[in-house]
Amino acid sequence: MMHRLYFHRDSKRGSKGTYDWLVDETRELGEALENGNKEELEKEFADVIAWLASLANVVNVDLEKAALSKYNDKCPKCKCSPCQCTF
Amino acid sequence: MMHRLYFHRDSKRGSKGTYDWLVDETRELGEALENGNKEELEKEFADVIAWLASLANVVNVDLEKAALSKYNDKCPKCKCSPCQCTF
Repeated sequence: MMHRLYFHRDSKRGSKGTYDWLVDETRELGEALENGNKEELEKEFADVIAWLASLANVVNVDLEKAALSKYNDKCPKCKCSPCQCTF
Repeated sequence: MMHRLYFHRDSKRGSKGTYDWLVDETRELGEALENGNKEELEKEFADVIAWLASLANVVNVDLEKAALSKYNDKCPKCKCSPCQCTF
């Protein structure tokens, strides 16, 4: 969906500019965690995952595939579910 | 899945500590964009979305629902698909 909506703009902006937007939205999420109400918080979560998806599209990474390749029903470090890491 | 794997740890760490991890993983994604190969890049994307999901779990936000509530087949600003924003 993000590809269909925004790739024509994301691809022109490029990876550096899109990453800078992701960092900015992550900062805004931090502010909403401290000061925002539930609705504002949900919108900031939406923006972070949207810009993460835009960035993945720009660099030709399948975000869902990448996530499920590393986190696939077990912790990638201890191989347990739930995670049993002790550090 | 992230709730099942990690919520027992995420909830103890709390929102501030989990947010700090998200910021750190976002920084690592930026480094992989500049210097990493495709596999490293995919793992960093996986880590960012994983920590974003962990943080959403800690503050009781449904990440998927929040994303689809704001970005639902149309750009939330111009209401078009694909986005026609001119700024």
